[in-house]
Amino acid sequence: MSNNNTPAKPVDSLSIARFCGISTFMRLPYVPDGQGVDIGMVGVPFDFPTNRGGTRHGPSQVREMSRLIRRFPSSGGGSPFDECTIADLGDAPFNPLNPQSAVEDTSAFFAELAARGITPVACGGDHAVSYFVLRGLARSSPIGFVQFDAHPDTSEELYGDRYNHGTLLTRGVQEGLIDPARTITIGLRGTRFSREDRDFNKANGMRVIDFDEFEEMGRAAVISEIHRVVGTQPCYITFDIDALDSSFVPGTGSPEPGGLTMRDAQIVLRGLKGLDVIGADMCEVSPPLDPQGITALNGANLLFELLCITAPAVAHRKKGA
Amino acid sequence: MSNNNTPAKPVDSLSIARFCGISTFMRLPYVPDGQGVDIGMVGVPFDFPTNRGGTRHGPSQVREMSRLIRRFPSSGGGSPFDECTIADLGDAPFNPLNPQSAVEDTSAFFAELAARGITPVACGGDHAVSYFVLRGLARSSPIGFVQFDAHPDTSEELYGDRYNHGTLLTRGVQEGLIDPARTITIGLRGTRFSREDRDFNKANGMRVIDFDEFEEMGRAAVISEIHRVVGTQPCYITFDIDALDSSFVPGTGSPEPGGLTMRDAQIVLRGLKGLDVIGADMCEVSPPLDPQGITALNGANLLFELLCITAPAVAHRKKGA
Amino acid sequence: MSNNNTPAKPVDSLSIARFCGISTFMRLPYVPDGQGVDIGMVGVPFDFPTNRGGTRHGPSQVREMSRLIRRFPSSGGGSPFDECTIADLGDAPFNPLNPQSAVEDTSAFFAELAARGITPVACGGDHAVSYFVLRGLARSSPIGFVQFDAHPDTSEELYGDRYNHGTLLTRGVQEGLIDPARTITIGLRGTRFSREDRDFNKANGMRVIDFDEFEEMGRAAVISEIHRVVGTQPCYITFDIDALDSSFVPGTGSPEPGGLTMRDAQIVLRGLKGLDVIGADMCEVSPPLDPQGITALNGANLLFELLCITAPAVAHRKKGA
Amino acid sequence: MSNNNTPAKPVDSLSIARFCGISTFMRLPYVPDGQGVDIGMVGVPFDFPTNRGGTRHGPSQVREMSRLIRRFPSSGGGSPFDECTIADLGDAPFNPLNPQSAVEDTSAFFAELAARGITPVACGGDHAVSYFVLRGLARSSPIGFVQFDAHPDTSEELYGDRYNHGTLLTRGVQEGLIDPARTITIGLRGTRFSREDRDFNKANGMRVIDFDEFEEMGRAAVISEIHRVVGTQPCYITFDIDALDSSFVPGTGSPEPGGLTMRDAQIVLRGLKGLDVIGADMCEVSPPLDPQGITALNGANLLFELLCITAPAVAHRKKGA
Amino acid sequence: MSNNNTPAKPVDSLSIARFCGISTFMRLPYVPDGQGVDIGMVGVPFDFPTNRGGTRHGPSQVREMSRLIRRFPSSGGGSPFDECTIADLGDAPFNPLNPQSAVEDTSAFFAELAARGITPVACGGDHAVSYFVLRGLARSSPIGFVQFDAHPDTSEELYGDRYNHGTLLTRGVQEGLIDPARTITIGLRGTRFSREDRDFNKANGMRVIDFDEFEEMGRAAVISEIHRVVGTQPCYITFDIDALDSSFVPGTGSPEPGGLTMRDAQIVLRGLKGLDVIGADMCEVSPPLDPQGITALNGANLLFELLCITAPAVAHRKKGA
Amino acid sequence: MSNNNTPAKPVDSLSIARFCGISTFMRLPYVPDGQGVDIGMVGVPFDFPTNRGGTRHGPSQVREMSRLIRRFPSSGGGSPFDECTIADLGDAPFNPLNPQSAVEDTSAFFAELAARGITPVACGGDHAVSYFVLRGLARSSPIGFVQFDAHPDTSEELYGDRYNHGTLLTRGVQEGLIDPARTITIGLRGTRFSREDRDFNKANGMRVIDFDEFEEMGRAAVISEIHRVVGTQPCYITFDIDALDSSFVPGTGSPEPGGLTMRDAQIVLRGLKGLDVIGADMCEVSPPLDPQGITALNGANLLFELLCITAPAVAHRKKGA
Repeated sequence: MSNNNTPAKPVDSLSIARFCGISTFMRLPYVPDGQGVDIGMVGVPFDFPTNRGGTRHGPSQVREMSRLIRRFPSSGGGSPFDECTIADLGDAPFNPLNPQSAVEDTSAFFAELAARGITPVACGGDHAVSYFVLRGLARSSPIGFVQFDAHPDTSEELYGDRYNHGTLLTRGVQEGLIDPARTITIGLRGTRFSREDRDFNKANGMRVIDFDEFEEMGRAAVISEIHRVVGTQPCYITFDIDALDSSFVPGTGSPEPGGLTMRDAQIVLRGLKGLDVIGADMCEVSPPLDPQGITALNGANLLFELLCITAPAVAHRKKGA
Repeated sequence: MSNNNTPAKPVDSLSIARFCGISTFMRLPYVPDGQGVDIGMVGVPFDFPTNRGGTRHGPSQVREMSRLIRRFPSSGGGSPFDECTIADLGDAPFNPLNPQSAVEDTSAFFAELAARGITPVACGGDHAVSYFVLRGLARSSPIGFVQFDAHPDTSEELYGDRYNHGTLLTRGVQEGLIDPARTITIGLRGTRFSREDRDFNKANGMRVIDFDEFEEMGRAAVISEIHRVVGTQPCYITFDIDALDSSFVPGTGSPEPGGLTMRDAQIVLRGLKGLDVIGADMCEVSPPLDPQGITALNGANLLFELLCITAPAVAHRKKGA
Repeated sequence: MSNNNTPAKPVDSLSIARFCGISTFMRLPYVPDGQGVDIGMVGVPFDFPTNRGGTRHGPSQVREMSRLIRRFPSSGGGSPFDECTIADLGDAPFNPLNPQSAVEDTSAFFAELAARGITPVACGGDHAVSYFVLRGLARSSPIGFVQFDAHPDTSEELYGDRYNHGTLLTRGVQEGLIDPARTITIGLRGTRFSREDRDFNKANGMRVIDFDEFEEMGRAAVISEIHRVVGTQPCYITFDIDALDSSFVPGTGSPEPGGLTMRDAQIVLRGLKGLDVIGADMCEVSPPLDPQGITALNGANLLFELLCITAPAVAHRKKGA
Repeated sequence: MSNNNTPAKPVDSLSIARFCGISTFMRLPYVPDGQGVDIGMVGVPFDFPTNRGGTRHGPSQVREMSRLIRRFPSSGGGSPFDECTIADLGDAPFNPLNPQSAVEDTSAFFAELAARGITPVACGGDHAVSYFVLRGLARSSPIGFVQFDAHPDTSEELYGDRYNHGTLLTRGVQEGLIDPARTITIGLRGTRFSREDRDFNKANGMRVIDFDEFEEMGRAAVISEIHRVVGTQPCYITFDIDALDSSFVPGTGSPEPGGLTMRDAQIVLRGLKGLDVIGADMCEVSPPLDPQGITALNGANLLFELLCITAPAVAHRKKGA
Repeated sequence: MSNNNTPAKPVDSLSIARFCGISTFMRLPYVPDGQGVDIGMVGVPFDFPTNRGGTRHGPSQVREMSRLIRRFPSSGGGSPFDECTIADLGDAPFNPLNPQSAVEDTSAFFAELAARGITPVACGGDHAVSYFVLRGLARSSPIGFVQFDAHPDTSEELYGDRYNHGTLLTRGVQEGLIDPARTITIGLRGTRFSREDRDFNKANGMRVIDFDEFEEMGRAAVISEIHRVVGTQPCYITFDIDALDSSFVPGTGSPEPGGLTMRDAQIVLRGLKGLDVIGADMCEVSPPLDPQGITALNGANLLFELLCITAPAVAHRKKGA
Repeated sequence: MSNNNTPAKPVDSLSIARFCGISTFMRLPYVPDGQGVDIGMVGVPFDFPTNRGGTRHGPSQVREMSRLIRRFPSSGGGSPFDECTIADLGDAPFNPLNPQSAVEDTSAFFAELAARGITPVACGGDHAVSYFVLRGLARSSPIGFVQFDAHPDTSEELYGDRYNHGTLLTRGVQEGLIDPARTITIGLRGTRFSREDRDFNKANGMRVIDFDEFEEMGRAAVISEIHRVVGTQPCYITFDIDALDSSFVPGTGSPEPGGLTMRDAQIVLRGLKGLDVIGADMCEVSPPLDPQGITALNGANLLFELLCITAPAVAHRKKGA
């Protein structure tokens, strides 16, 4: 009676039309208990009310637009859905009125995933979500961190608050979640709050490729540099969608012109195959600011690219195990 | 690990924020196999390419907007979710490129539901969907039919085609699915294709309350008249959302000004409690024509009203059984 | 080879799907030379830059949305397209950068129509358009004037300018185009520029039914009053679409809440059959403010209602002639 | 050199076109220090992230759309801008990441206004804003409270949180800010969270006119009832814009079909002249959900109606003083 | 009386403002009988209901947005409107409810054009439209084929159906309409249905330049390669607008990020002058998905570029004849 | 009591959330009398009704979107707000119904600024605005002129009118406002009205870098060429936002595909530091055509870049003085 329950494979759009069935990430089966899942796609519909918001509706619209994603990558090769068992686990639960408990509850959710050996590919929500996931993944030693972003997110605090989308890296470093020496930020640009807004990165030895340098280096050199910085140890990849030029992301809170094209993002992400990815996310899609969903469509495509990097890493770890 | 699996109850929006979890009708559990379900909410994302279209995306947007629906009716009294086990069964499967097989496949889907004792409350799709469901429900004797609509849908054919949203009642009567003597159409209005466009109704003794008469009679008299025509035998209710004044439904293919308000619809539908409803639907919400979803929100509210009429009928039949 | 050239009949949407063919008013034949035409539908894409504008794109969007209009009236009876030869004559030509010449050129266009015995039903453009048409129709004696509007348009001047959408009635009376004693304005409401903004009407003995009075009187009495004021002599009808409650007209420059519903407008207009209409218009639809076209759809329906009043008047005059 | 600084009068749209000058409420002068002001229009751009949000952008869009408001009321009579000195004081300052401090800071802002004898007419933000203002106004004895709303806002808590848009009246009563015996709520409707959601009102003797009763009573009786309940002692009026039927308010977080029309709201508000209003607000306009601004336009009109009730009350108190 | 009937020249936007007159392609005269026409612009408002649809409204919106096109090309040189007689012939007629007959009727329409020596430049509709036109053009020997597209359209069937936008090239080759050895596809990319989705191209010796190769080669080399493959024999050019990066085409059914910019498309198309073009089309603009019309504006510009290639080919053939 | 009055500094978005306070350019103080101001940001909400309009609402939406601008430039270095005293002076006053007087009044406004030593950075309005400002700045000798634009604006007249957005450079040269030998136009492209549309530039020795040449030269060479042409004498910079590729500017009247990216614009503008800028503007943002404001966001960013060039020039002149 169902049209959406092929075990751990996306619905095939050649058999069942794209507009049919409930919305899940990539038309994947909805497996709320995570049984038998290698990679769990999870929505984290959390946002702070600091600016143009609405990213808490992001997971829903990204699910809807991901109906357009097919099973095999553009550049050829195998499907991530054949390498690993991937499913939509639903959304992480939390109380939106209590940021403190939301951090705890969401982190606990991802900690449980980690404990069960499920690698998360998350969809925000705002960029604080990466911190939530990282806390859940927390390991004995800090991990590598690849950040695509227009903004450094390295404030000590924002309006006196220490845990939010503007303090992501500061907390990550201070709490030993990420290893600054293995951290690289790509795409910074836009007007700045202060002259000092990249000092934290420098002081902690974190590599920054702002968009000026990105353009100068070219994509291939950027890819090499990411591999050089992150190395072969475990790492996390986060893609704040405002890394893209604002013409690609009408639906995000802090759009900045003059940034990456989707082509840039695709090429660089495809170059990251080989990293030992233990988690990834895409954040900052705000549906109310883009009801037609072009931003969410880009987000869905980026999540697919993240799956294409993460699946081989998971498969490799399983084989090694 | 899940936030969406309370057995056969909608997610409680007082516990889990509305923007959390995958989109299902009324935040109900997604039960694709229909196990243990009394009333199955089903999407039928089918439309014919005859006019401003897009209603095949209707079920998805109505699910999304139905996050705003709560568990208890506006006018007080019990919740349909307490009277019956209600679930989202997903969408009926069919081939959109083959209307003939689509009719067969969709009807078969509803026939199976009927065979298993599950009462359908469907969401279109265009208004041909009602015909699909009716065929599935088909009984030894024709059933009563309550139609809210701006258009009669009584053409013999449209562009030479016999099965589509414009021929719904013609086929229904001709194939013995509906009983013309127990059929009533409410809300007709708008410019007409011909002087004869209500002749089929007259010839077959079907009661029509066009909007002129609706306004003259008032809601209470309309309610009485529906009860009088339909009586206590089994009936089906269909709500083509263009019955509403076009100011309420920017997102429908054939909007007609000068029609029912949502208040009119709510009051009349609430007055239909007591009918022996064996199936119902709401059709013609087109998301591309209303990306903000106000039309879908109205559709979700109408589906809730339909549940409030259908649930007591189901409960009554179960008690009787 | 054409699908749009049935002589002087709208394309039949039962034969040729609505989305086919170039856009003309009501899917009528496009007859730029007006040969053999009784009633000429004419666009006047003129607006003054005084407020939220864009009504110069009105005729195009109203044509597009008028694909949804069918050939027979809602309330039964004959089709205006059977009573008279009606065609789309295209748009009146003028220089948008020179309001003075635009007034002259547009008036001349309508004067030529008048000379050739073609009755105009025009589509604005802003409300100054009515003045342009009236000047073209100008007769030996002033004519009756029925105005649906939220605003009186009786300023002596606006920003020092004497010919614009705010001075329509003032000029019309002063230049002997309209007969104040046979003029009636329906639907005034909304915040006012001054306490004196209805003094011109009073001073000239023009009847005003503001929305407070409209609601008190009821539609039937309003209809009677219009007939009483205008009588059986020639008259002109103008419908500024902001007469409608702002919820019906997101796409107009000066929307005012608390006004007529489309139902009110339809009923009252239908009651005006019998007036000796020598011209009519519908103005102030602004497509950029309503890209989905609900305002234009209402405008198209109102133009159809105007045709239903105008066609019998034309037929009657022809018979009399 | 300025075009926006006529002392304490709105810019006259007959002299300076509406699209000119910075956006302030009603085109009033911007007087951030409140010097010499009787009635201060204040934005409170605060919202909680519990549902479809974005009302923190409300004050800005309402200011923009209020360019369409003129100086005199629709129903005739004097201008509130002639009775009192009214200005736009800007927005109340607060930290959006710290709801606790936001409550304190915003209340302090309104307390200072109260201390200086400035009567506030506020624009939210979400409905928690009313609580902020009330706390600032707090008097020796509780005040009367007139609430237009689709939802009771009488939860004990929401997601464990005690101060938010769902607990407004509970806190107001418990903290002695409002007098339940002099409180009246108009417009309740829509699906309910529970059967008990009006128990708080009953238990505390608060008068509720839900929309069923509203329709039954008629506007005139509702007006009388409000006067009866509130009496001649000081009161506060809050208009949650979702009291309006959802067709009027696409841009609000929890739209409910089947409610008040703008006409209903206008007539009832106009009937409240004579109340001793010591503060008022209009809340829940969310610009991202209605970029065309029809919701904000309605909000601006409602604020004007609130000014028309508040100005005579202020003038009367001044005379009495 | 007309403002739109300069014989076989577009309305000059320096004389008559762009918003004046009915909408035709490029403001060309509307010549439904095709008398004296060399190049006929034709709308084919056909789409299959397989995905996000609405392209059947494409011709109308492209006509509207083509008001912005002027008479001379950007890069200098003569106007196509001076080289040939070009007109808008209206839309091809067909029955949207019967795809089989629609194929026949539309092909017959183009066959008649071919018989009369009119070269078609068509505007879809979905990409199946190219097949319709090709069938009409059908010649003794297969023709060359230049396809700009994100998707190969080389399925054997889609949902069991053999004639639709996904099987365009398969049918074209199998029915001898196009010559695979003289066929070239530019712009393929995006997630794939299968690993084998380019096998048909390979097996038939069709040249594919996917976007990876496009970027590597550069525009100049791509132009050369097209000339090399197609040669000097007759050919057809089709531009599926989803060949463009999705940021340029919010209004198309299957948008794919990471593709051609409009600049890429313009430069490559301008390089195709000299091909013996016997027909061309631009497809897949869906107005409901882009009410502001940016996608249609791009489509209108591409149609102009196609005219600039087609006109010299037509002129050359006429001279040769 | 105010949150928007830090003397001559923008509101710091790290202290006061971006959605708080009235909308001014860059969150600057509103200083209508210009006291103590070095650089005055001024709105000029003027447009001619010649095409898709609405730019008269540009200043308001650009102010709103400029909330997203921070205080320091992307590429590092000091803030223009530290180099000079910058404020929002409001809008230039004029009568929109009288273009002649509007030219005079607006020019007089800027002449007064010039007399008081305030350097203007203006926001249109349509591109005629540059002429208004230039006339106000008028000096003993013509000044250099840097124009970013898709269109030459060098018509002798438009529809017989001599002063409008299409005749900007013609009048500027003829009236001795700009020095053709020191004038450079960057970005021309798009279909052309005539073959001769660049003859005026050639005849007057004005340098044109159309987009073909721009691409060929590269940004660095373009920057050098601008410096070479303009030299070190006083100059004016105007940025018609349609210089950008139409994918960046859905909200402009005459969008042209195939143009500058925002990155191009940013890099070239940043290269213009060192020019002796005595005034600048950004024009042609039309909010009704882009309610989500992406065009206005780009406009706000461009205005910031213009400030970053203008502030050092002003500082340098002050030091020299």
